Amino acid sequence: MEFTVKQIAALLGGTVDGNDSLKINQLSKIEEGKEGSISFLSNLKYEHYLYTTAASAVIVSKHFQPRQPVKATLIFVDNSYSAFSTLLEQVNRLRNIEKTGIEQPSFIADSAQVGDGIYRGAFSYIGENCRIGNNVKIYPQVYIGKNVTVGDNTVIHSGAKILDNTVIGQNCVVKPNAVIGSEGFGFAPQPDGTYRPIPQLGNVILEDNVSIGANTTIDCATMGSTIIRQGAKIDNLIQVAHNVEIGRNTVVAAQAGIAGSSKIGENCQIGGQVGVSGHLMIANQTKIAAQAGIMKSIKQEGLSMFGAPAVELKDALRSQVVYQRLPELEKRIHALENKLNNQ
Amino acid sequence: MEFTVKQIAALLGGTVDGNDSLKINQLSKIEEGKEGSISFLSNLKYEHYLYTTAASAVIVSKHFQPRQPVKATLIFVDNSYSAFSTLLEQVNRLRNIEKTGIEQPSFIADSAQVGDGIYRGAFSYIGENCRIGNNVKIYPQVYIGKNVTVGDNTVIHSGAKILDNTVIGQNCVVKPNAVIGSEGFGFAPQPDGTYRPIPQLGNVILEDNVSIGANTTIDCATMGSTIIRQGAKIDNLIQVAHNVEIGRNTVVAAQAGIAGSSKIGENCQIGGQVGVSGHLMIANQTKIAAQAGIMKSIKQEGLSMFGAPAVELKDALRSQVVYQRLPELEKRIHALENKLNNQ
Amino acid sequence: MEFTVKQIAALLGGTVDGNDSLKINQLSKIEEGKEGSISFLSNLKYEHYLYTTAASAVIVSKHFQPRQPVKATLIFVDNSYSAFSTLLEQVNRLRNIEKTGIEQPSFIADSAQVGDGIYRGAFSYIGENCRIGNNVKIYPQVYIGKNVTVGDNTVIHSGAKILDNTVIGQNCVVKPNAVIGSEGFGFAPQPDGTYRPIPQLGNVILEDNVSIGANTTIDCATMGSTIIRQGAKIDNLIQVAHNVEIGRNTVVAAQAGIAGSSKIGENCQIGGQVGVSGHLMIANQTKIAAQAGIMKSIKQEGLSMFGAPAVELKDALRSQVVYQRLPELEKRIHALENKLNNQ
Repeated sequence: MEFTVKQIAALLGGTVDGNDSLKINQLSKIEEGKEGSISFLSNLKYEHYLYTTAASAVIVSKHFQPRQPVKATLIFVDNSYSAFSTLLEQVNRLRNIEKTGIEQPSFIADSAQVGDGIYRGAFSYIGENCRIGNNVKIYPQVYIGKNVTVGDNTVIHSGAKILDNTVIGQNCVVKPNAVIGSEGFGFAPQPDGTYRPIPQLGNVILEDNVSIGANTTIDCATMGSTIIRQGAKIDNLIQVAHNVEIGRNTVVAAQAGIAGSSKIGENCQIGGQVGVSGHLMIANQTKIAAQAGIMKSIKQEGLSMFGAPAVELKDALRSQVVYQRLPELEKRIHALENKLNNQ
Repeated sequence: MEFTVKQIAALLGGTVDGNDSLKINQLSKIEEGKEGSISFLSNLKYEHYLYTTAASAVIVSKHFQPRQPVKATLIFVDNSYSAFSTLLEQVNRLRNIEKTGIEQPSFIADSAQVGDGIYRGAFSYIGENCRIGNNVKIYPQVYIGKNVTVGDNTVIHSGAKILDNTVIGQNCVVKPNAVIGSEGFGFAPQPDGTYRPIPQLGNVILEDNVSIGANTTIDCATMGSTIIRQGAKIDNLIQVAHNVEIGRNTVVAAQAGIAGSSKIGENCQIGGQVGVSGHLMIANQTKIAAQAGIMKSIKQEGLSMFGAPAVELKDALRSQVVYQRLPELEKRIHALENKLNNQ
Repeated sequence: MEFTVKQIAALLGGTVDGNDSLKINQLSKIEEGKEGSISFLSNLKYEHYLYTTAASAVIVSKHFQPRQPVKATLIFVDNSYSAFSTLLEQVNRLRNIEKTGIEQPSFIADSAQVGDGIYRGAFSYIGENCRIGNNVKIYPQVYIGKNVTVGDNTVIHSGAKILDNTVIGQNCVVKPNAVIGSEGFGFAPQPDGTYRPIPQLGNVILEDNVSIGANTTIDCATMGSTIIRQGAKIDNLIQVAHNVEIGRNTVVAAQAGIAGSSKIGENCQIGGQVGVSGHLMIANQTKIAAQAGIMKSIKQEGLSMFGAPAVELKDALRSQVVYQRLPELEKRIHALENKLNNQ
């Protein structure tokens, strides 16, 4: 793919300062720019790169005024960040010629129904009574058990395993090797010290526009449903235990774990490697810093939590500062004791 | 599936108070009850739900006396929790018509032997010299390398990878995309800063009644065996490194990691995201709270550990309480110093 | 396989003290020695096992002098540890008859090119325009998307997923169910609280001699490349986010996570369950203890870091010691206050 600066400026509704016939064949960060690449400058922290970048062109916001000579051709737009995003999406669309059709061998039960325009990759498996919508993409080596519903335009990447009775909405993405609807971890202790598995009869529901990361596991409910609400984004290697509910537009970063039956509110931001204990309620708009451990419900909306066990960020920071001075503190106490004893 | 309350009461050996001809078609938690569902009340913390639940029927213990009018039909039994478990298992049995037979295409080496009544899903792979017992279920896209033994009635779910020389006992469950017997992480540092891989010649042994979670990894031993003892239950996304041993009936929650050569005792409970360093011994009946970091062997049985580095729970709680008052403590020291200096 | 002690001593260039016609058929740790096994003694901490081991033979260093009678036959060599490694590698070579050839069914796009001497397992998938080198092993159920390059002698284990545009060097190992090149976790928040995915147009590059663990995920870059440099060893269940770079010969232990755009230096050692925040620089030779949380760049080379948030090990240990005495400290402050108030 190759475009001129002029073509790109036209696409973005921008104006050009410099040579508009330059050929562009890739996007780059401004600090990694090279001949033939186009970059953008939004955060002025990176302004110094503008004067040294080897990128052929840089998208900047229309009110930006360079303070030094710039070698690259500039494209002035209303909002450089969102213009660049548009460009990214454009390129993405051109690159991804949509896969459709059926590769062989693949397996589909007689009782399964699939919509139009779908892709079924080689070695994929669709079990009994599944209902697969239109334009769904099922990559190679995907497993879909029985009684599974998948909404229109959803993409299930290679190696993902969708177990019995799962319900997946429209426009979802399930990344490679994710496991959705595997049995929850429920065991009843017996008098002799062994454990008897508690049947897990529920399912998993992913509402529309949900994204599930690679190698993430979402267990089915004991009864009822484990639910990921509309628009929630779940990163890689995350554990979501049975009967958990994750609210609309909540974002969970990699390697976090949510224990059984906890309910996470809407528009929360949960950092990487966070742990949330079982049977808790987390209020809407809660922000939880990476590696925090949540051991109690959070009732007030919009708090920022930190540490393990987690406390409000402002309290955590105060204690932490003193923590790092603990040896000195101990010495001061010792000095006080000496002084007092010698009086 | 649909049953009357009368039929269910007969199954459980209970007596009915209310309309015993009501139709039941699902199980539910008492707080999520709806028409046609049956629930149970065991923990009296949830008693208030009994008076508002929309469930058609609720199983209660025979000595329970409602303190308010109840709309649902009640079934009185000896032990409501265990009666409900029985019901769960009954339903589970009815729902899971056991899969048997061979789906094509699937791959099996000529030298492999398989027992009776087994299921081999499409795209599953069984390598040379494997010995697979009776009634084993091997779901689609499972990989079983060479010289692997699998005992009777074991279930290996879709996408699990069982590498060379692994020994799996009877009645085990390996959940989707788990990896058993991959090479341990062993490298010898070289003088030039590079690392040379140390051959990992051992294997993994899962004894009987072991459960391995989705996307969990259990590495083979350098020499000898990594061993998961009888009845141990290992949740999702757990790392068990080479030469680890996990004792009988020990339960490990999601995302915990056990480093190389550590030995965990029997009937331990290891919380989510716990880390155990290498070459340690953990005594029987140890309980380790979620996110704890175990850096030393634990010799006394039955301790509860907390924190990172982990200490006994009671000590941890004491230090933690003071930790949260650190800023105040520092002020008190400062006040003392002022006072003393001004004397 | 069976060898005499004499044969092994000849292989290792060692001299024998004891019966050199004993038959050896396995390797063992000295504490797990049995008849027919050969062990080694390197770390003298384990010397007492030498006098009780049931191993038939033990490799020791030539200057070692037993202080008690030894039942096992001894083989004296220059360096017992490296001699034993040689033996391990020898046995490994004999055991692993190299797999080659093509198992069916397997899938390869017409436009893909593969070298000589390769193994393509059943149910493996190779997409359009791939370039696969010589002697590459692609195990069953591996997925390789389009435009992927794989260098000579690389091994990709069962179930690993290599997504579009990934570049893998020579002599790499990718373990089962690892996911390389899945889309990074990038979303632009919208005014209505939803998130719009940011196209991830970059790729992943694994340089030569890289090892990637089971169920590890390495996301593709937004633009440019996520890069794992030559000789780096990445363990199981690790998250490497988009645009991360991991330096040459750096070792990362299981379940660690590196957030987006962070650059890890060369010859670092990163412990298990460590978290590194996004957009940081970690200097060469940094050692990070297990479970630590790195929240700031580390500019000085060779530091040892500990704790969350991580500080230098020596500072961490000092604070930690006092932390465990916090309740006592508080009492001492209280005593001082009393004393002072009663003066």
